[in-house]
Amino acid sequence: MSVKKISILGSTGSIGTRALEVVDAFPDRLSVLALAAGRQLERLAAQVKKFKPRLVSVATPEGARELKERLGSGAPEILSGEAGLIAAATCPETELVLSAVVGAAGLMPTLAAIQAGKDVALANKESLVMAGPLLMREVRRRGRKLIPVDSEHSAVFQALEGRPAELVRRVILSASGGPFLRSTREEMEQAGPAAAAAHPTWRMGSKISVDSATLMNKALEVIEARWLFDLKPEQIEVLIHPQCLVHAVVEFRDGSALAQLAPPDMRLPIGFALSYPERWGSPFPRLDLARAGDLTFEAVDPKRFPALTLGWRALKVGGTMPAALNAANEVAVGAFLEGRLGFTRIAAVVAEVMDRHEPRELEGIARAWEADAWARELARKTIQDASH
Amino acid sequence: MSVKKISILGSTGSIGTRALEVVDAFPDRLSVLALAAGRQLERLAAQVKKFKPRLVSVATPEGARELKERLGSGAPEILSGEAGLIAAATCPETELVLSAVVGAAGLMPTLAAIQAGKDVALANKESLVMAGPLLMREVRRRGRKLIPVDSEHSAVFQALEGRPAELVRRVILSASGGPFLRSTREEMEQAGPAAAAAHPTWRMGSKISVDSATLMNKALEVIEARWLFDLKPEQIEVLIHPQCLVHAVVEFRDGSALAQLAPPDMRLPIGFALSYPERWGSPFPRLDLARAGDLTFEAVDPKRFPALTLGWRALKVGGTMPAALNAANEVAVGAFLEGRLGFTRIAAVVAEVMDRHEPRELEGIARAWEADAWARELARKTIQDASH
Repeated sequence: MSVKKISILGSTGSIGTRALEVVDAFPDRLSVLALAAGRQLERLAAQVKKFKPRLVSVATPEGARELKERLGSGAPEILSGEAGLIAAATCPETELVLSAVVGAAGLMPTLAAIQAGKDVALANKESLVMAGPLLMREVRRRGRKLIPVDSEHSAVFQALEGRPAELVRRVILSASGGPFLRSTREEMEQAGPAAAAAHPTWRMGSKISVDSATLMNKALEVIEARWLFDLKPEQIEVLIHPQCLVHAVVEFRDGSALAQLAPPDMRLPIGFALSYPERWGSPFPRLDLARAGDLTFEAVDPKRFPALTLGWRALKVGGTMPAALNAANEVAVGAFLEGRLGFTRIAAVVAEVMDRHEPRELEGIARAWEADAWARELARKTIQDASH
Repeated sequence: MSVKKISILGSTGSIGTRALEVVDAFPDRLSVLALAAGRQLERLAAQVKKFKPRLVSVATPEGARELKERLGSGAPEILSGEAGLIAAATCPETELVLSAVVGAAGLMPTLAAIQAGKDVALANKESLVMAGPLLMREVRRRGRKLIPVDSEHSAVFQALEGRPAELVRRVILSASGGPFLRSTREEMEQAGPAAAAAHPTWRMGSKISVDSATLMNKALEVIEARWLFDLKPEQIEVLIHPQCLVHAVVEFRDGSALAQLAPPDMRLPIGFALSYPERWGSPFPRLDLARAGDLTFEAVDPKRFPALTLGWRALKVGGTMPAALNAANEVAVGAFLEGRLGFTRIAAVVAEVMDRHEPRELEGIARAWEADAWARELARKTIQDASH
């Protein structure tokens, strides 16, 4: 049995901590070479003591110093900032990088990992949203594996595995519907951060919880699926499936469909990505269909969830438009979490930024960053103007 | 685009007629070289005129003469009996044989097709029930494909495709539950052939309709799955799924599962088997999950459906026991359809025959036939004794 050497970017976040639970469950199969985190130094110090990486990276030089003090004489090499993140992503002996940083910050280390010849388990969907065609070109050029960690994309990956894309008629991504599935538009207008974060099924970080409440998360996933699986935007559909057991359905052109089912536990798609192409016997909860209750599927109400349609709109425009969508959303979600923007205004701000974005071809990664910076600036201004 | 040359055994039955609808939908891809049927000569004559096979076979020499008269000067070669069936199965240019004869009669032509180097699309589950290990040995030895046509096994085949069997934790076969899903044991005791044939979802021949009402069909499918996919009996489970959209679920050892879904239309698994390894764009009804209503799964009540457990029991005993089960069931179903046996007595007769069967090793096909003959005789006697 060979041990796979991995780096985890975003180790103290929701995905990172669950990934380390997977490592803990398979100590003979996974070994952690590098951990990168942000500001949660206490949690990171505990991880370093337990998993003994060779390299650690944190957000700032101050954080690096503090972590070194916490760890004392047994501390590994500790770096900081984007350079540290990229060092963790390209750590020489690492075979697989779990890219689980939140937001646009995940793009450069993900790209660096692929360019350094690593396989990537991708939880950071923003990197595909911002620069999908560029990232996929690098993956193909270097013959690397890009294994999705999002439960929906892991589901599509598993249903498609080994089958040519031309056999696919359409892909259905499941959406839980989030905490406001049965709320009125008026109730949604009044919703604050606590209500938006109260996801009925998944426990997640605050950014993705808000994205799940607006369904912007699903819009990002539509874009992610387009690049991961080389689908046309109109081949991708979204259905509400509140039970969160069926994560995606792939319908083939002959009318037969394969759905992937699993308990809503991120350790399963993380474990799949870390073990791929093997599947390891799992100690995690099992599916019990006879006790699962009814499985239901319903269309999304575009009036209450206008964010969802922005995903297809950004894809149809193409170029830098998805990067603008993503950046505007990050700013709007941040403002919402700080109480400076109403819940239903999040999608409105993103749509306004998209209305005014003049998309350019994605000739290189710099173009994605230009659009990102431009959209952030405009989103900030839009939010500020409205609050005066 | 190459044209696949096929033989259809059982062309006037439920599977056969639907297979010819598939051929009709893909005239550039499928060509019918041989048709074999029983006694439905009018329907067969129409099929011969339309699909122009080179070889036709019917049940009896008299039937062959009558068919020749019906067809006149343009008649192809017409044979009869088991020799005719085997000639159709081994027709020199045939690449793929659809084996859709009902009951034990399907075994010898299926075996002959494999031994003649044909791929087989298998709808005749009884041949795997009677002689699964022998049939699979021939399939492996000759490097042929055995593609299941039963919707449940087609589902498992699609979910497993290209994946090693050791990755599988268990397989769940769906059962509609048949017409008596919500009936009491007392109501089932009074049920006649018309009630048993009134299947809520699938339109099928009378034998398989009764098997679906007792769930003996599912017992046969458990045995079929064991051989097709090299599973242990305890890895195979059955759940009631009245909506008949999910046909089977394969759970892998990592806790992730793939379910195959499709509208309950046999042209889909038939089309899959005839097109394999391609999938052709289907003109048949599509899945609409958003309008499908709730999908439910529930355990089978063994008190009302005792036939189901006989499948695992036969597998655990092994040898000729599944052949005895199948033969006793064919006799009991025949007696039920003729009004000579109560509905709930079908499973009881089969269980009694199994109780008294002394299983032997399946050293060769003759052993399966010996058990078949012995079980038929005992089943007949058991039914007769009880009616006096």
